[in-house]
Amino acid sequence: MYDIIILGGGPGGYVAAERAGQKGKKVLLIEKETLGGVCLNHGCVPTKSLLHSAKLFKNAQFSGQYGVEADNVSFNFQQAMHWKNTVVSTMVHGVDFLMKEHNVDVLYEEGTLLPDNSVQAGEKIYKAGSIIIATGSSPSVPPIPGIDSSSVITSRELLQIQKLPSSLTIIGGGVIGMEFASLFSTVGVKVSVIEMLPEVLPMMEDRMARIVRTEMKDVDFYLNAKVDRIENNTVFYSREESEASVASDLILIAAGRKANTGSLQKLNLAYRKGFLSVNEKMETNIPGIYAIGDVTGKSMLAHSASRMGEVAVNTICDKRDRMRYNAIPWAVYTIPEAAGCGFTEKEAHESGLNVHSGMFQMKNNSRYFAEHGKGRGMCKIVTDAETGIIVGIHLVGGVSSELIAGAAGIIEAELRIEEVKQIVYPHPSLSEVIRDAVWSLT
Amino acid sequence: MYDIIILGGGPGGYVAAERAGQKGKKVLLIEKETLGGVCLNHGCVPTKSLLHSAKLFKNAQFSGQYGVEADNVSFNFQQAMHWKNTVVSTMVHGVDFLMKEHNVDVLYEEGTLLPDNSVQAGEKIYKAGSIIIATGSSPSVPPIPGIDSSSVITSRELLQIQKLPSSLTIIGGGVIGMEFASLFSTVGVKVSVIEMLPEVLPMMEDRMARIVRTEMKDVDFYLNAKVDRIENNTVFYSREESEASVASDLILIAAGRKANTGSLQKLNLAYRKGFLSVNEKMETNIPGIYAIGDVTGKSMLAHSASRMGEVAVNTICDKRDRMRYNAIPWAVYTIPEAAGCGFTEKEAHESGLNVHSGMFQMKNNSRYFAEHGKGRGMCKIVTDAETGIIVGIHLVGGVSSELIAGAAGIIEAELRIEEVKQIVYPHPSLSEVIRDAVWSLT
Repeated sequence: MYDIIILGGGPGGYVAAERAGQKGKKVLLIEKETLGGVCLNHGCVPTKSLLHSAKLFKNAQFSGQYGVEADNVSFNFQQAMHWKNTVVSTMVHGVDFLMKEHNVDVLYEEGTLLPDNSVQAGEKIYKAGSIIIATGSSPSVPPIPGIDSSSVITSRELLQIQKLPSSLTIIGGGVIGMEFASLFSTVGVKVSVIEMLPEVLPMMEDRMARIVRTEMKDVDFYLNAKVDRIENNTVFYSREESEASVASDLILIAAGRKANTGSLQKLNLAYRKGFLSVNEKMETNIPGIYAIGDVTGKSMLAHSASRMGEVAVNTICDKRDRMRYNAIPWAVYTIPEAAGCGFTEKEAHESGLNVHSGMFQMKNNSRYFAEHGKGRGMCKIVTDAETGIIVGIHLVGGVSSELIAGAAGIIEAELRIEEVKQIVYPHPSLSEVIRDAVWSLT
Repeated sequence: MYDIIILGGGPGGYVAAERAGQKGKKVLLIEKETLGGVCLNHGCVPTKSLLHSAKLFKNAQFSGQYGVEADNVSFNFQQAMHWKNTVVSTMVHGVDFLMKEHNVDVLYEEGTLLPDNSVQAGEKIYKAGSIIIATGSSPSVPPIPGIDSSSVITSRELLQIQKLPSSLTIIGGGVIGMEFASLFSTVGVKVSVIEMLPEVLPMMEDRMARIVRTEMKDVDFYLNAKVDRIENNTVFYSREESEASVASDLILIAAGRKANTGSLQKLNLAYRKGFLSVNEKMETNIPGIYAIGDVTGKSMLAHSASRMGEVAVNTICDKRDRMRYNAIPWAVYTIPEAAGCGFTEKEAHESGLNVHSGMFQMKNNSRYFAEHGKGRGMCKIVTDAETGIIVGIHLVGGVSSELIAGAAGIIEAELRIEEVKQIVYPHPSLSEVIRDAVWSLT
């Protein structure tokens, strides 16, 4: 008998297991494949490793302006993939160590929820006071004629290819599509992106999404374009009532993700649009059963899953906590990077908030200029006009992905303009753009 | 008649001028050389530009592990210096633009304070309701026999050299000494550092300073070493009662800085250890005269000077404000970088605070590992044991200099352990080490 059984060892499940273990709970973590889940094995971490290699490749080619010269700069894809695999396996080992350190039992099986709230894994039945569902999500494959063509793959397969394709078509201009577009175009693959909406990266301020897209100069973007069918390695799409096509070695489907619920079908769990329904304590409709992470469809990000795991464990342990979504940062690790936290100006308007916004161009920041010259990076701040509370911070350029945690702290702590003005930012650092954007409000 | 006259156009003076201009004050800024002061023209900004070039050079040479290969990687020092000069002149132009935008009059003269609180500049006398002294500091040149040798230079001259020396001896292992040691050793100069104390970078946690020093593998460090004399290009030092010497093309004096007070001698301003005495509103002992930045000897950092400028202007404008030093971040842009904010554990003990500390190794962070492998970076958190308030955050490795602003926000807002645990950090990012170090406290 366990205190908690967790289904799925991704960043939701393993963090929940760690926190529960820290609190002395007896925990069973059931994972059908590898600890770390999609994020660590087939998603965020391997792409970030490869994007780092791509960034180094670009820097080695184009740093003459900064005084660095080199001949015959080449990208060894096999070595980059080898390093990526080393990163993944090292980190998986780290999660395994964390589980042992916190006395979490790990079972490598597919776990199935049974009607009496027990879990079947292999031949055995396991019982616990509480169950946390953290089964994650998988790529959705939209019903496009010809999508079963052998040249069509998902992100998971793309991270396992043995050699670089000469060309790649990406269906979907969201985070996954854009990161792969950035990665492969930087290392010399001819990349096309087909996106149904008028702009890529829909969670982003329009103007900033446009910067990311237009900075990816070697990528062909087809916006407002609907994919009609795939024939072998050619994607046919229609745009403004005319049809066109693009042919490539590989076709990546990056058109959203769907909840993994196959192992939950024996229970009458409540769903909302295909995802498990949960309240702010991560409780499902069935007492004793919690759900966290992508399977809930709320904020499908690794770090949201981890935080949801902490909320579920706190709830189980009778410690007051609740999940809030207003201060969750996101980052896109394209070249250039982008990141944001809280409301965009448009979202604030849509939710009826009266806001002011401030803006600062990164090229006026001395460290940014020293490292990038006149790039197009920027920082935008959105504040509640009545209270002065900062409700959104958005960045594109430089190490945006590393600055956004500071922004999340500001939004989480509900700091006001006047309070942020008193935070001292180190000079010369890119982080100063946040302070400067706040000052631009006056 | 002006509202405010500011003596010195560095990051203290020009930010004070900008803020006062924003508030509609009539401001005269008197600068004897170039807007931006030492920081922009001869200090932080040019060194960061050159350190960026050095970092790119290192990456271009040693990225085989990540799949990036190149032949004949070379460092074009003239081009790196040319780019550095472009960065400086572009940013100086930016400050000039800011002054015009905020209707600040700028006078390029040496301004001298007169006994009636007026200022003489050239032939003319200027008067104002308030005067802000922001005259900054200059390198101290310690009274070492032979220090007037032609091979001995300060940081200012070192930033203007035409070609790389083959060897460089640095007297002083503080921030300036260490940044130059990192820069020049990375681009192939044989560097030696002579430091009087048992460890370099005295404001840093000992253990972390040791990491920075030992990561600079090509630099020879002589600690606990007292410089006795210089003969031509040879520095003689004694250590453990025996004398030794090191010879090099150039010798950099990086042994602290002294206040620039030459233009203030006609007034009876109060001093403390050679620096102007001020209270928390930046008032000197003479009514109507304020002092900010390096000339006060308090927190000799560009961003501290800027914040002091804001406090002085707020005080002049009857807006309540006061200067606090507990949440000022610092950063050292060596390779690897280091940064900190608030108390070290030792400082906390010395000030009688009962503290707990938490620690996290960066190699266990997935982004750090992906980008650096098993490096020795770390994050340390110091908390008040009674209240749980976080009083210090210290980092070495990765983009520490960009993470420390988030840390400064946490310390400025006096967040507690339990509050920081609820801040969501993006995954995978290096910034997560702060959260992980906080979690290590439990």
